[in-house]
Amino acid sequence: MLSAARADDRDLYAMVEEFFRSSFATDNELITEAVRRMLAAGGKRLRPRFTLLAAEAAGGRAEDHLRLAAFMELIHVATLIHDDVVDGAVTRRGVNATAVDFGNRISVLAGDYLFAWIFKNVTADYERPIPHILSSTLADITDGEVLQLKALADPDTTLAAYVEIAAKKTASLFAASAECGALAAGAGPFAVKALREFGTAYGIAFQMRDDLLDLTADEATLGKPVGNDLRERKMTVPLVLALAGGDREFRSAVERFFAAEDERPEDVAAIVAGIGAHGGLVKTEAVLAGYVERAKQALAPLGNAPALAELTALADALL
Amino acid sequence: MLSAARADDRDLYAMVEEFFRSSFATDNELITEAVRRMLAAGGKRLRPRFTLLAAEAAGGRAEDHLRLAAFMELIHVATLIHDDVVDGAVTRRGVNATAVDFGNRISVLAGDYLFAWIFKNVTADYERPIPHILSSTLADITDGEVLQLKALADPDTTLAAYVEIAAKKTASLFAASAECGALAAGAGPFAVKALREFGTAYGIAFQMRDDLLDLTADEATLGKPVGNDLRERKMTVPLVLALAGGDREFRSAVERFFAAEDERPEDVAAIVAGIGAHGGLVKTEAVLAGYVERAKQALAPLGNAPALAELTALADALL
Repeated sequence: MLSAARADDRDLYAMVEEFFRSSFATDNELITEAVRRMLAAGGKRLRPRFTLLAAEAAGGRAEDHLRLAAFMELIHVATLIHDDVVDGAVTRRGVNATAVDFGNRISVLAGDYLFAWIFKNVTADYERPIPHILSSTLADITDGEVLQLKALADPDTTLAAYVEIAAKKTASLFAASAECGALAAGAGPFAVKALREFGTAYGIAFQMRDDLLDLTADEATLGKPVGNDLRERKMTVPLVLALAGGDREFRSAVERFFAAEDERPEDVAAIVAGIGAHGGLVKTEAVLAGYVERAKQALAPLGNAPALAELTALADALL
Repeated sequence: MLSAARADDRDLYAMVEEFFRSSFATDNELITEAVRRMLAAGGKRLRPRFTLLAAEAAGGRAEDHLRLAAFMELIHVATLIHDDVVDGAVTRRGVNATAVDFGNRISVLAGDYLFAWIFKNVTADYERPIPHILSSTLADITDGEVLQLKALADPDTTLAAYVEIAAKKTASLFAASAECGALAAGAGPFAVKALREFGTAYGIAFQMRDDLLDLTADEATLGKPVGNDLRERKMTVPLVLALAGGDREFRSAVERFFAAEDERPEDVAAIVAGIGAHGGLVKTEAVLAGYVERAKQALAPLGNAPALAELTALADALL
């Protein structure tokens, strides 16, 4: 029984997976295949789990909100398909990016179709304000990605500018996932706001952890090359904070690295070492811990129901 | 006064232009600029005019539905921005394609943002079923484009397959534009259905006229090279109908043309001549006239209000 299966967080993951396996298909075969491939490549399904946990925290049952939860993951998948076109990515979660196997043309259209298909279903199935929240979220994600492109290789990027980008491109979907789960389960405005705030703070911390992993994890764990963000000239938070130390020599080294046409592996390694030497990793851990704390404080007034404890545990896992 | 300005169809165009000039801006400057540039490059604003005329036909005032009408043009603009990425287009309406001036990365994101911005506004401003119609329409447009990509260079494409693609990628937005204008002005189900049917038949005829112009108009009129569809290996209706004649030599010539890496201008000219010689142009005119007739028949039961006469005139203008 599904309700009995809600003994631990692991089972929420299994419920989402089962829902995708049994219930996801669009009218376009090629696009269904591209999405299934992307889903099969992995992922922790954090966004749908946020929706289900928020629904449970509001007194709902996870199994009643699987469809809404699935839309959150699919918005994420659609943005990933377009990101890989935008970034010219070769791999995603360790397998070929959609654009590599299907071509950029199909990738652009597959992402568009998936966005449209999600909104078509959401506008049919859900009352206000859920369709508005999801479309506003997609606007935020894309706006954040445009801001990120504009900030590429800009050594003057501030922590505030970084946080604005992370809040839009990453945290907005976590916030919406939690908010919509709460709304769908009939939570009151106070709980909805708290769960949304949790999602925002969690999402910013999540992006910071992602930035750190790009520098410190190995390729097998990441499913993409180490230092990939640096190669893409992204102003990640460890780099922003390392540069904020004000060392001119390091700044010059970063500028030369970004200006180079073809960086060698040792050039990437030198910048990674420089980020560490100038406190970028340590300072990021501290800022990240602040957002995890903020996330947990947002939930504190709601009590300690099991679903809230699971959300708190997810936040702690970022430390 | 706006209401006095509704003496002829030309003024509806002016109202839409004025609305874009005075009232269009998104939160992202770069994207607002890209969209304004695309709007400034021209276009007949047929889709918003459909919305306004349908609203008038339902007893509404055009000036009360300018915002809804503008969304129809913006959906069109967003699809054009992505089309140009997908097609690798260099020019659009005689000026540089967005992707040329802004790059493919910004173009993908600009289209995404514009779609999201439209849905964000539509879900805030309009009741069911308008948000659902617009998102379903975008799903149809994209689905049609994927089907078109799959049919590229396929000499076995049938007229029925062509019509399915044109109905989805082109006619669906004309149908939605008319349908939503009628709905917003409070039309009854009979009138809504008739106006939607008009839009569908008009849109298929419109795509057929577009296909013909690609073969017969000059580059200055088109704002893009003559025979562009052929170079892109698109199975346009004149080509489909010319091949349906069953001439094996012509079919072989088309297959060789599509298989060639770099076609010379004289190769394009030879296929254009072959399409004419095998009745492709004449047969297309006949099929197109059938859809114009179908469009007019859809409106006939609604009477002969001025707005309906203008819609009929727009259909006749395709002949």
